[in-house]
Amino acid sequence: MAQHSSQAIATLIDELARLPGVGKKTAQRFAFHLLRAPGERVLALSEAVRAIKEKVWHCSTCWNFTESEICEFCTDPRRDHSLICVVEQPNDVLIIEKTGHFRGLYHILHGSLSPMDGIHAEDLKIQELVSRLNESVREVVIATNPNIEGNVTAQYLARLIKPLNILVTRPAQGLPMGGDLEYADDVTISRAFEGRTEL
Amino acid sequence: MAQHSSQAIATLIDELARLPGVGKKTAQRFAFHLLRAPGERVLALSEAVRAIKEKVWHCSTCWNFTESEICEFCTDPRRDHSLICVVEQPNDVLIIEKTGHFRGLYHILHGSLSPMDGIHAEDLKIQELVSRLNESVREVVIATNPNIEGNVTAQYLARLIKPLNILVTRPAQGLPMGGDLEYADDVTISRAFEGRTEL
Repeated sequence: MAQHSSQAIATLIDELARLPGVGKKTAQRFAFHLLRAPGERVLALSEAVRAIKEKVWHCSTCWNFTESEICEFCTDPRRDHSLICVVEQPNDVLIIEKTGHFRGLYHILHGSLSPMDGIHAEDLKIQELVSRLNESVREVVIATNPNIEGNVTAQYLARLIKPLNILVTRPAQGLPMGGDLEYADDVTISRAFEGRTEL
Repeated sequence: MAQHSSQAIATLIDELARLPGVGKKTAQRFAFHLLRAPGERVLALSEAVRAIKEKVWHCSTCWNFTESEICEFCTDPRRDHSLICVVEQPNDVLIIEKTGHFRGLYHILHGSLSPMDGIHAEDLKIQELVSRLNESVREVVIATNPNIEGNVTAQYLARLIKPLNILVTRPAQGLPMGGDLEYADDVTISRAFEGRTEL
């Protein structure tokens, strides 16, 4: 990387290059864009970045991001408080909400079990999940990712929660809408056949 | 886009989505990355963004970015002050410097002539270029992009500068027509400089 005519520009490029999927060249393009941008936009971005550290906390019930002690999902009386969907990351909540189908509450684990990477049960919000499972909770949907770590995490949680006489479910695995059998992998096809439903 | 659980997150995503080539989905990935990042990294990014508006100015001679009145190129006695390379954007300086071949000074136009887009000579740092061309300047290399606007700008500058008895050159068309300096490799840029021709 060539020498920059300003230490401030070099520092900005270094910081931008820490964003996921952003290399030095993209960071440089971002930096030069900001150098040409109106001052109020640059300050707005600076403030927006700072604000998330000052204003955004974790909901003390579901561990989603929130600006209050308890998030808007957990305090919403119109949502079904007897149904809890467990996901790995806050981003997963957005993805599920976009469908408009799920009207229960959430619980964010902040990861999945991966002993090979040193991520054990105590590193996730699992104890926090169990402690919120009182008699008013009817069902827990474990929507961790359909990969090895997500499946292992789901099995682990099911063993913890089933003894509490709470229904534990997992979203169906099968062929994606609009997909083609030819392009589906063996595991997906096997799961789709196992879970076949009567027409 | 689904509703966000925090106005601060929504604002950050909006601001990040203004970066070039960044859509809502990428901005969301950046935001969630920052929400997981250590506080000092988030503040460092916020500060780095703010700093460019507070510390970075244009060199009053060559119009490159600098943190001083005059930039480090223009004040460097080891560089050839009789040779000036004219480029469209500050980014182009980095690209040329990376090759290590050019040892003269620079002049940044901050754009190229494009009457269709309403960009005329008075919108670029052309008057500023002409006024620094004293008798100690031997050659001006016009390294505007090898596209229509860049070529038109080069021709325009050549007509202005040649009457001053200064050699006006252009990097050889080793650069692909319709291309952009930013995407050329080092060897192509070096060859183009070696084979520069008089206009």
